[in-house]
Parts: sequence; structure tokens; C-alpha cells
Amino acid sequence: MKEESKLGSAGLQMADDTIVITPDHLHVDKVTEIVGSPSAGAISLFVGTTRDNFEGKTVVRLEYEAYVPMARSEIRKICKQVREKWDVIKIAIFHRIGKSMNKVNQSGKKIQSVSGKVKEVLLSSPQYDSV
Amino acid sequence: MKEESKLGSAGLQMADDTIVITPDHLHVDKVTEIVGSPSAGAISLFVGTTRDNFEGKTVVRLEYEAYVPMARSEIRKICKQVREKWDVIKIAIFHRIGKSMNKVNQSGKKIQSVSGKVKEVLLSSPQYDSV
Repeated sequence: MKEESKLGSAGLQMADDTIVITPDHLHVDKVTEIVGSPSAGAISLFVGTTRDNFEGKTVVRLEYEAYVPMARSEIRKICKQVREKWDVIKIAIFHRIGKSMNKVNQSGKKIQSVSGKVKEVLLSSPQYDSV
Repeated sequence: MKEESKLGSAGLQMADDTIVITPDHLHVDKVTEIVGSPSAGAISLFVGTTRDNFEGKTVVRLEYEAYVPMARSEIRKICKQVREKWDVIKIAIFHRIGKSMNKVNQSGKKIQSVSGKVKEVLLSSPQYDSV
């Protein structure tokens, strides 16, 4: 267990769960690399993006604040729930804090990803959007 | 409709469906960029990777061959089925042909991706692994 890993000051990697809360851009290729495993037949990624409208109003950006230790603790619970239900190999959950612009190709506000056998990955995918 | 798009010789982009069959590495960031849309609240990606074992035997690589026009036509049917069931914005399906090595970070053998509203994206994700 490394409290301060190379993932950044708010990044925490515990066993095969990676939790990162960061003001930086999120990158799907980086997350894919983290969850990749020689014994995995599949990787799923769910990217939350900032859409340009909400309840009929234009959205230019979202702004997220978080009390990082609590956010991390809640995300850790989600990882635990996923592992209780599905036999996944690795989990990575990245959440951005600060400004998240409505710009295509601007990373997104969160990325949740798992690797494992095809069936487990497919079944777990729609179940964990609770971050 | 562009029969030969900038996506490469086996790439076909029709309306908001992108179908690419290629011997080249697949890149999740490129696929994410293609399905991105200002009005999308989410993007899901399913990456099929080459795992290191199958029925107790070691797998070093897989090799895929395809009669590209037929493969493309079958994938187009899948896109149609997805759109009949879910209100997604864009779909991209990339499939690699040729050698697909068991190496983490070596792209994967296929990537399927949709963008849209969070609920539609989550519900459609586990349903379309039939490529």
C-alpha cells in the first residue's frame, strides 16, 4: 500500500484497485493501461463527460469539489461492492475535481474501468455508476 | 457516406456509426475521440484483449482473418440493432485483423464504443458483444 503513489498526490493504488482524484485531465489510454492484465480477456471503460445541456439550459462547464479522503473512502466501498459481485481482475476509478469543460476530447469528468473475463466485465459494466 | 474515409482503407464512417477493420494497433483514445459528442453525458468502451490462456493452454497470440466486406456488413447490422434498442448518439466499432499479441498495452483485438445519455450508454454496454 502506497499512500502517495506515482499516480499523483490524490492517487491511491491498493492491491488491484486504483483510485485517483485529480484536477488534471483524465486519459482513457492511461486508465486502460492501468487495468490491463495478461489474464484479462476484456476491459470496460465508462467515461462520464460534460454535456452541453441540462434541463433545457446550456452548460459550459461543471465544477466539482471534493473532500478527498471521504471521496476516496466512498469510492473504495464501490470497488469492494464490485468485487463482491463480479470476479474482475483490476478496477480503476478516476474522478476529476475542479473545472470540467463541455469540450469533446477534453477527457471527461470521470472514468471507471475494470478488466477480467469477458462475461464478468460485461455484466459489471452497467452496475457501478454510483461514483 | 465515404467508402474510403481518412480512417484507413477498411474504415467506413456512415452517419454516426464508425466501422473500422484494420491490421493496425487499436487506440482507445482515438475511439473515444470519434464517439465524443457535445450532447453526450457518457461514453462506454468495451475492449477485447488477448488473454494469456484458453482452456488451460498458454496463448501467445491470436490471428484473425476476415472477408472485410462481409465483416463490415455484419457489424453494420449490430449498429442497427443497438440503435433500435437504445437512444445512443454515436457508435464506433473497431476490429483488428492479423496478429493480436498477448501483451498488456498492445491495444486489443476489438473496441466497441457508444456515446449518449448516461442511462442509455450504461444499459447498452453489456448487450452488444456479438462482434
